Formats: sequence, structure tokens, C-alpha cells
Amino acid sequence: MKNKVFIACSIDGYISDVKNSLEWLNSIPNPEQNDMGYASFMTNVDAIIMGRKTYETIAKMDIEWPYAVPVFILSRRLTSVLPNLNAQIELMKGSPNNILQTIRSKGYNQLYIDGGNTIQQFLSYDLIDELTITTMPLLLGGGSPLFGPLINPLHFELVKSEVFLSQIVQSTYTRKR
Amino acid sequence: MKNKVFIACSIDGYISDVKNSLEWLNSIPNPEQNDMGYASFMTNVDAIIMGRKTYETIAKMDIEWPYAVPVFILSRRLTSVLPNLNAQIELMKGSPNNILQTIRSKGYNQLYIDGGNTIQQFLSYDLIDELTITTMPLLLGGGSPLFGPLINPLHFELVKSEVFLSQIVQSTYTRKR
Repeated sequence: MKNKVFIACSIDGYISDVKNSLEWLNSIPNPEQNDMGYASFMTNVDAIIMGRKTYETIAKMDIEWPYAVPVFILSRRLTSVLPNLNAQIELMKGSPNNILQTIRSKGYNQLYIDGGNTIQQFLSYDLIDELTITTMPLLLGGGSPLFGPLINPLHFELVKSEVFLSQIVQSTYTRKR
Repeated sequence: MKNKVFIACSIDGYISDVKNSLEWLNSIPNPEQNDMGYASFMTNVDAIIMGRKTYETIAKMDIEWPYAVPVFILSRRLTSVLPNLNAQIELMKGSPNNILQTIRSKGYNQLYIDGGNTIQQFLSYDLIDELTITTMPLLLGGGSPLFGPLINPLHFELVKSEVFLSQIVQSTYTRKR
């Protein structure tokens, strides 16, 4: 059972800029569409736990729903999702521990935890086992931060660090318990 | 002429923890005292611009003053420094641009900019040319942040990324102008 984060951020730790834009993610030319390990990461994911904002950002994009695995969306407010996504999406609320228990009871164990608030909440309960951070070479100076406050420091172990497109550092850490 | 930062921080971008401690910097065993490029970095430094807090942190440590080059300490409040350091230290105040002009007029051009507030202030004026960030594998969840708000994003170019002691990622960026 593993809860994993796979996310891109700026050097100063923002996952979206002050205008809520993600354009800066494309600031490094990527002619061969290097996915920086994303597809390989997804082969080891059973289900996704995603914050409401991340869901709405994806739903607003003019693209096909990009996930083949079930997606659990955390929201206190949402009561329904796009009708064509009813089969793939389930809305959930509650504490991270209760949510995990429910999702695991459905047989999903390799979980991709996505969205700033959701990641912060899971980290605050020390529920993240693996952290892959892809650092874009810029300072945004504001926006949505990847990390939030913690009661106690959390130590991690570096598993791998790679450079993509000569410009993007990606480091994978696992929680040291 | 170059203004350079060389600093260690946590994965979540803190340079000291909530207790103002730096003990976590020693959380990775370093039996052979690998300096992670510090001595080599310092061979290309003419002078140091340092914030008051960083000065006070070093002054309080029971160690010899660790710098061979002149150190300019930025403070609106301080009127004197430890008497034995009078020859090596000069107190300064004013805007980053004025400070740089004064220091350069004295013939110093390769400057090491140190201390969280000082780095943030220089970055806010887009006065940092090189950024070497050594990332310790932990989340502190609070403390003094390395980065602060910016009016506009600042793009950098990755020059080098290395792993030290199998655990510590160090990335060097230069400002892309």
C-alpha cells in the first residue's frame, strides 16, 4: 500500500502561478514530448485521489478525461461531476484516514495523491510514502504552494534524481519511517 | 560581475526550522566532511553580502570567523560588530542597488549573497545571477523560507545538478536574461 505524489513545481515550490495558470510548465521546449516518467509512474497506480480544484482545472480543459484508473475526488461542496465521467469518478469527503480506508476496502492500494490542498492535507497526517517532484527552472514568486505547515518535520530518503531536457530536475523521495 | 547564492534548504524551501535551528543540516551522515562544492564556490567569491540575522547566528557560534574575504553586513539597526571582526566586516544599509554600487566601487565583483531576507530582497530587484540550492531530504513544515514574493516570475537556466552523499540534490541555476 502506497500513497504517491508526482507533481511539477517551480524552484520556489509553487504548483500554479498567481493567475492560476500552468503555462510556465511548458516554458522548456519539449519537441519529443518527453513525459518525464509520467507514463511509467502511472503503470503503478491503481486509483487517484484528487482535490476538487485539480478536478475542475482538468474538467475545464478542452481535453478527453486523461485517466484510465478510478478517480476519487475530495470535496465537501460538489454533489455531482460531469455526467460523462460518472463511471470513472467518485466524490468523497471525510478525513484522509477514513478516505484511505474506504478506497483500500475497494481493493485500490497504489494511490496517486494529486492537488496542492490534498497533498498538504495528506502530508499533515504523514500519509505520503513517495514524493516525485519535477522542478521547473524558474521562480514564480507567488501562486499555489505545493507544501504547507507541518507539526513535525518529515524525513525522506532520496531514491533517484534525474535531469530532463537539460533543464528540469526530478527527484523521487520515499518516506523514512 | 556576479551575485551568487549558495544555500541549503529543505524540500519545502526552509533555510532554518521553527526553532531557528540548523541541526537538520547534519541529518545526513557525512563521515568524510564532503563540503558539497562550498570551498570551490568560495574560490570565486571576492566579498560577501550578508543579512544581520545570518551574521548574528554565526557570531553566536563558538567558532572562528569563517570567512577570509570582506563581509558586508546589511542592517538598519546594528551600529557595531564584534571588535575582533572590525577589520573584516563593514556595516551597510540602503537599497540593494546602492549597496552593490558601493561594494563594486571598492573593486569587489564576485559577490556571495547570504541570508534569507537578503536573498529575497536581492531577488525582488532581480539582482541574483546564480543560484546554487542544496536540498536536504526532509520537509520542515515551517521556519524561515528561502524565497519570498516576486512581482514577476524569474526564469533561470539549469547549469548543473548533482547528488551528494546519495541523499542531497544540489542544483545550480543562472539567471536567463
